[in-house]
Amino acid sequence: MIHGGDLISYRSFYDGELVDFSSNINPLGYPQGLEEELIGGFGELESYPDILYRKLKSSLAAYLGCDSSQVVVGNGSVELIDGFIFLAKRVVLFTPSFAEYELRARAYRKETVYLAYKRDFQLDPKALERTLKKEDLLILGNPNNPTGLRLDRDTLQECYKLTREKGALLLLDEAFFEFCPEDYDSLELFKDGGYEGLIVLRAATKFFSLPGIRLGYGGTSERLARDVEEILLPWNINSLAERAGNFIFKDKTYIEKSRNYMEKERTFLMGELKRIGSLEVFPSQVNFILIRLKKFSQDRAFDFFLERGLVIRRCSNFRGLDKNYVRVAIKDRKNNLRLLEAFRSLDSLAEEESS
Amino acid sequence: MIHGGDLISYRSFYDGELVDFSSNINPLGYPQGLEEELIGGFGELESYPDILYRKLKSSLAAYLGCDSSQVVVGNGSVELIDGFIFLAKRVVLFTPSFAEYELRARAYRKETVYLAYKRDFQLDPKALERTLKKEDLLILGNPNNPTGLRLDRDTLQECYKLTREKGALLLLDEAFFEFCPEDYDSLELFKDGGYEGLIVLRAATKFFSLPGIRLGYGGTSERLARDVEEILLPWNINSLAERAGNFIFKDKTYIEKSRNYMEKERTFLMGELKRIGSLEVFPSQVNFILIRLKKFSQDRAFDFFLERGLVIRRCSNFRGLDKNYVRVAIKDRKNNLRLLEAFRSLDSLAEEESS
Repeated sequence: MIHGGDLISYRSFYDGELVDFSSNINPLGYPQGLEEELIGGFGELESYPDILYRKLKSSLAAYLGCDSSQVVVGNGSVELIDGFIFLAKRVVLFTPSFAEYELRARAYRKETVYLAYKRDFQLDPKALERTLKKEDLLILGNPNNPTGLRLDRDTLQECYKLTREKGALLLLDEAFFEFCPEDYDSLELFKDGGYEGLIVLRAATKFFSLPGIRLGYGGTSERLARDVEEILLPWNINSLAERAGNFIFKDKTYIEKSRNYMEKERTFLMGELKRIGSLEVFPSQVNFILIRLKKFSQDRAFDFFLERGLVIRRCSNFRGLDKNYVRVAIKDRKNNLRLLEAFRSLDSLAEEESS
Repeated sequence: MIHGGDLISYRSFYDGELVDFSSNINPLGYPQGLEEELIGGFGELESYPDILYRKLKSSLAAYLGCDSSQVVVGNGSVELIDGFIFLAKRVVLFTPSFAEYELRARAYRKETVYLAYKRDFQLDPKALERTLKKEDLLILGNPNNPTGLRLDRDTLQECYKLTREKGALLLLDEAFFEFCPEDYDSLELFKDGGYEGLIVLRAATKFFSLPGIRLGYGGTSERLARDVEEILLPWNINSLAERAGNFIFKDKTYIEKSRNYMEKERTFLMGELKRIGSLEVFPSQVNFILIRLKKFSQDRAFDFFLERGLVIRRCSNFRGLDKNYVRVAIKDRKNNLRLLEAFRSLDSLAEEESS
């Protein structure tokens, strides 16, 4: 499996309910009131969604602080990533990063260039400067999956400047944006330039706990919005997803509460994980943590956790990571404690085996 | 607008509820019990759909009478049409037909060949024989939109034989299949050959009255299924759409009732329309009727109907039809009577103006 979240394949290995630490979903669940809202939309299933998604784009424009004409919507942000990759001449990726960038580029037989993040998973703009060419599409996870790191503001501005100078496009995949501690907002930062050559993608999937609804969106220049909409499928958003989109982004209380909750759990879980000697724990600004296992392979750890009903993400299929990395989602306290306990047992096992 | 169903654009022109004769949806609405089924699926929104859609494919395999490995699923059948067009070297279309074939081919800059249906909208295999080349993708609406006609069994078999001989692919867009009087089932007809070089696409959209849910599917060879799945987006089906798909196809009573209802209304509406002198009414095997207006342009008729709260489909943007064609959906008796009344008034107006 290339992605996390595939619990179906592992159900037979554990007698009980599996807990999914392999996909990074807000543990608070989707915003309250959504169910009634969806029920109210059942009648709309008998009509085509608005092919122009006028109301949805207007809801998103209000949430993102940009103009409706700058909003694009997709069947998950992956449809938007896909569309921009299709339009690109060449794709430039930093590794490790989300596997779909590479897969979609491969589906369209696009030339793809891989640059490595530094050892600490920070980006070196010099590597970019040497590589970037006209009509390239540079895709950066911001924050990046699986590393959990966000570009600092200066590096982001430098990257954008570089893409503009070279005549390339910058696509920021910000699927985890709302989980980050408040710092900058890319859409605010580049608003005055009308997002020329820039695409900022986000989604309802992770933060709003709606991976099943398939609603991705983004802000970009009017021109790029028009270009990608020639590639996007008609009626690409299900009418219940559209309805959800007109509802969830208004819930400021939920957004605030989720961000605070995650900040608290992240601090707690990171602190505890760092005490475990056999783990190298990488800093995270989001709702998941990348870990290097000093004494076990990912597969041994995976099986060890699965025996305890926990599914973690093995990372060797992220280009640039070897078989010693795993990624875990930050969940609610009860489950985070189960995760910690399993890591501690694994650590004790390492002690035993080395003694 | 390229498609029907865009009522939002016309709302301000009529003081009341518009009736949509421009999109071809089953007037009986979606199957009973679907709402409870969807409500039962709200919890699943917080997980990714099964990326392999194992259960959905098995539901569809049972409905279609083929193997799960021969089933493909899409975000509406348009995603599947799109995927196969992307893979094709050249696209061969008969006109008039559904606009998306041409639009998706254009999006991918595919060479496209247009052949015309005969004056009675039947297909001439000889034209095909002269044109078809290796690696072509021939797309046929079966039944075809906007003409409402199905290929007779012999012509279909001849077309398939031709594509096999030439090394081309045959894609049958059967979005309206279940509305047809029972005759043959393409998936049954070609089952023994394992659907080599054949794609038969259908959807929940029209017959199951679910255009908002976005669920298209099809039967094809295992090999073509694998090929197109490299192009399809991951998690392309919303989890509520998946749930609907596991429910609706089992409702044999609904299917039977809808087919009978449509047969009755079609016979009634066709009979009445044919009495109106200013209309040339084309035969139909589905839930819509193509009409040539002998004395009015499509735009004049459109406005005339809109004043009466009825939205019909103008057809001049179907390649091969001029400004004198309109298409109307067959709805419930009450609305069909309103439609007839409007056509009769239009006919009287024609009388007046010519006298």
